[in-house]
Amino acid sequence: MRITIGDLLLRRLTELGIEYLLGVPGDYNLQLLEQVKNMGGLEFVGTCNELNAAYAADGYARLKGCAAILTTYGVGELSAICGVAGASAEHVPVVCITGAPPLYAMEQGIALHHTLADGNYDDMMNCFRQFTVAQTRLTPTNAAVEIDRVLCACIREKRPVYIQLPSNISYLEVDAPEGGLDLSFPSEPLQLEAACAHLLRVWSQATKPALLIDMDAERFGLAALLKRLSEKTQAPYASLTTGKCILDETAPLWAGLYVGEASSEQAKQCIEGSDCLIATAPRFIEGNSGLFTQKLPARTVMLGGNSVTIENVHYEGVRASELIARLTDGLESNVCVDLPAAARQSWQVEQDAPLTQSRLWPRIARFIDKGDVVLAESGTSNIGLTPQMLSENVTYVTANIWGSIGYTLPATLGTTLAAPDRRHLLFIGDGSFQLTVQELSTILRLGLKPIVFLLNNRGYTIERFILGMEDAYNDVANWKYADLLGVFSDAGNYMAMQARTEAELEAALEKAADSNSLCFIELHLDPFDAPAALKVFGPATAEFDYGPRGPQRLLA
Amino acid sequence: MRITIGDLLLRRLTELGIEYLLGVPGDYNLQLLEQVKNMGGLEFVGTCNELNAAYAADGYARLKGCAAILTTYGVGELSAICGVAGASAEHVPVVCITGAPPLYAMEQGIALHHTLADGNYDDMMNCFRQFTVAQTRLTPTNAAVEIDRVLCACIREKRPVYIQLPSNISYLEVDAPEGGLDLSFPSEPLQLEAACAHLLRVWSQATKPALLIDMDAERFGLAALLKRLSEKTQAPYASLTTGKCILDETAPLWAGLYVGEASSEQAKQCIEGSDCLIATAPRFIEGNSGLFTQKLPARTVMLGGNSVTIENVHYEGVRASELIARLTDGLESNVCVDLPAAARQSWQVEQDAPLTQSRLWPRIARFIDKGDVVLAESGTSNIGLTPQMLSENVTYVTANIWGSIGYTLPATLGTTLAAPDRRHLLFIGDGSFQLTVQELSTILRLGLKPIVFLLNNRGYTIERFILGMEDAYNDVANWKYADLLGVFSDAGNYMAMQARTEAELEAALEKAADSNSLCFIELHLDPFDAPAALKVFGPATAEFDYGPRGPQRLLA
Repeated sequence: MRITIGDLLLRRLTELGIEYLLGVPGDYNLQLLEQVKNMGGLEFVGTCNELNAAYAADGYARLKGCAAILTTYGVGELSAICGVAGASAEHVPVVCITGAPPLYAMEQGIALHHTLADGNYDDMMNCFRQFTVAQTRLTPTNAAVEIDRVLCACIREKRPVYIQLPSNISYLEVDAPEGGLDLSFPSEPLQLEAACAHLLRVWSQATKPALLIDMDAERFGLAALLKRLSEKTQAPYASLTTGKCILDETAPLWAGLYVGEASSEQAKQCIEGSDCLIATAPRFIEGNSGLFTQKLPARTVMLGGNSVTIENVHYEGVRASELIARLTDGLESNVCVDLPAAARQSWQVEQDAPLTQSRLWPRIARFIDKGDVVLAESGTSNIGLTPQMLSENVTYVTANIWGSIGYTLPATLGTTLAAPDRRHLLFIGDGSFQLTVQELSTILRLGLKPIVFLLNNRGYTIERFILGMEDAYNDVANWKYADLLGVFSDAGNYMAMQARTEAELEAALEKAADSNSLCFIELHLDPFDAPAALKVFGPATAEFDYGPRGPQRLLA
Repeated sequence: MRITIGDLLLRRLTELGIEYLLGVPGDYNLQLLEQVKNMGGLEFVGTCNELNAAYAADGYARLKGCAAILTTYGVGELSAICGVAGASAEHVPVVCITGAPPLYAMEQGIALHHTLADGNYDDMMNCFRQFTVAQTRLTPTNAAVEIDRVLCACIREKRPVYIQLPSNISYLEVDAPEGGLDLSFPSEPLQLEAACAHLLRVWSQATKPALLIDMDAERFGLAALLKRLSEKTQAPYASLTTGKCILDETAPLWAGLYVGEASSEQAKQCIEGSDCLIATAPRFIEGNSGLFTQKLPARTVMLGGNSVTIENVHYEGVRASELIARLTDGLESNVCVDLPAAARQSWQVEQDAPLTQSRLWPRIARFIDKGDVVLAESGTSNIGLTPQMLSENVTYVTANIWGSIGYTLPATLGTTLAAPDRRHLLFIGDGSFQLTVQELSTILRLGLKPIVFLLNNRGYTIERFILGMEDAYNDVANWKYADLLGVFSDAGNYMAMQARTEAELEAALEKAADSNSLCFIELHLDPFDAPAALKVFGPATAEFDYGPRGPQRLLA
């Protein structure tokens, strides 16, 4: 079929299930925006800046499986790159489209604005190459092939990709295949056969099989398959903190979070004592491994998205999803157990008690309901929520590996666009909030309705507990946060609340539960209070970062 | 002398005249922040995010000759990189220091947070290599040499440099030379001699010598030298828009802005008709050249910072400053003329007339006074102010080449810190303001007192005039901008005003002139109004970007 390059690219995005293109207009991408306007099924959502677009896309892709951003060359894309690198670190597929200068100008090295004016048009791609699994500069000659190549890589590898669309070719027509993208990526049959046999043999010999979940289980669509395997075989499972809530934390087969030496005894036994551990591409960093104290058993089956390793045999081109499905089918069929929800103890409100981190998070965990989307900012929010048992089918969004503060506010724009029928709860501290605050405006403009918990404790609490507890460099200005809603919106489509005590928190939660508009709940906390885990994590991090000559020793 | 690596680095920054280190704390840089706290002469100024730190550093360096930012690895530095690339494009020396993971972890490829968790520690440096003239990863063994090498390159080349300081070595002591940095960079004597003789000969034969000023004249400290040359010889001068206000626009020798075919007849004659044009490294892009219609005369002397080309002879290692000083000394000594300020016509206020772009900028030009620092955001502000004759010794700060919207608000933080005794005027549109709005909070927190003109016209006006005049993608949310001041500050250390008519503008200007606090003046303008130059520039840009098949033709 004959189709313009821009329309082909946009059509392919819709085939990936993308309904919103996030970004900022710029003179090199306006033509594509005209094409977005004229086509159905894809809507442009302008964000206040490009970093926020990238974070929003990350949030969107976590729920929808893929997202896309549109920036302009140089200034736009570089503003977004931290978010793109974050998506790469967190294995989130985001298509980065940049409206580039006219093709002939790039090919001839003509000095233009939004460049270094030195005729170099490789520099931006050199940057994006570091964080994307495929890159392309489209031309009329390569567009039909390159668009499909790059988008398939995005979905296959669950990582960002990068497309330069020169401004002067978007309206040009090319020949493109009639059909849609082929995203089946079937396994190599002989390797799959061999891996299945091997895995069945290993599993059948085991008496203590178990599962260890990391984020790739969700990214590669394995969650339901692993749940079925666990239920059918009664194999228990644990998660890394980087795989939190992918499988149900309230089921009897849940062994807890596995964090090396810092695990509960139950989780440690489950994982380290297993004689056949199926682990979904666990990536251990200092933060999710109890400072690298993990001890995986000798018989660990490593599931990659597109490969698997069993007893040191590497099977290439094997889709984990096919392998797990075949394994489960091939095993003794037990009755599928009906998993009862774990009972929670009742909660006693201490009416006049000031809010504390130690009581806040257990209370919040009770407020979080089945099916909620929870966005937990790096720092106290994530550290406070991680140990809490959360309800079934909660999607837990954080950036455990990348750890870029400010991420979750724009990510909430993305998750609410992706799943408007679910309830979205954002937990973010004041320091983080200030980095990306403007995107609250877009959330309000679009009438989206998350519940935003703003933790006001006057600074970068996580840094305080690492170094500089009372130092001014860890302070942030104390804004009147709730007043921002009135600055950003005159529609009155929000409810702003404050809580200093447990009673006030209860009242706010009650209102939020009943609300049909955006709720903004400012929680006032002591600057020197922290979740218990941070009180351990902070000094340990200082020790790790600064070593035996570091200030934590000098000051001791 | 024995000195810790961190202290050596900080001491060198103070030798460069840097008084403020801009940035955001992160766990890998806290140790250096402790060292900043404990040393005199250098203060850490925390910004709300890292992009804003980079923009602020750019503004600071334009007035002070150098600036420094401190970020944390990965998430921090990548958030700043757009501003660093901008400093590179605009030839602004900024030292980028990133607190990196422990050295052994980087050397051993240990997976950590703030990385892609793949053991790769080259990716960030690969990005910064694109936009910096020197890069280093400090070690105890190389620090004494590398710090000096990289900082000298920053000053010598007037471009950003990049330093990774691993978290665990900042407190380690090394041997360093007693003396300070050697920043003299003298010319190669024989080349200088030859270039001087050549230039004197060419200049002496000329009957119509002239000067063409671009930004490097300011960056390499040539402004006063070129002024003296012009005054002594009565040679006229013109500027590129990228060199605006570096030499006085009110003097009789001022020929105007040179923009190729779009120049005034006087400027064109002066430059294109010259038989000895001294041009300070002019960099022509589409935006400052009348779409590449510049015609420099055959006898153009090209002054680089550290080299010069005369009649196709390249003299390497020649400092332009030394060359111009020698040339001026060697020429007939005319009496230095006392340049009278050009008289302005008086201004008639049309009391009830709504503000328009055509009358706003001439009025603003009259408000701008000798010695002011003017920050003009890309878009209507810069396009509106560029043609206006501004007073002597005005510093005009914009990003003509990089053109990153949102730059000027954080840049104002930098310029006000750099020159607290000067008056700073920021002109920024609403669309741009939204990208980096949070840095207004830092300006207020520090009690700085710029006059901020916020142009509220509901969107990206420059884009409207390129494409999508009435399209929603060029709209931005209409905030209650003035209310932001109360959100960010409860000190009441500001004055907020609104102007819809010329009379209201006059009243606001009068109050601002007398004010001793930050003034925020919101100007309400029609969304479809623009400075005359934008009405030409917009369609021409659309034609350039999208070419003969572009929408501007299809829609015509």
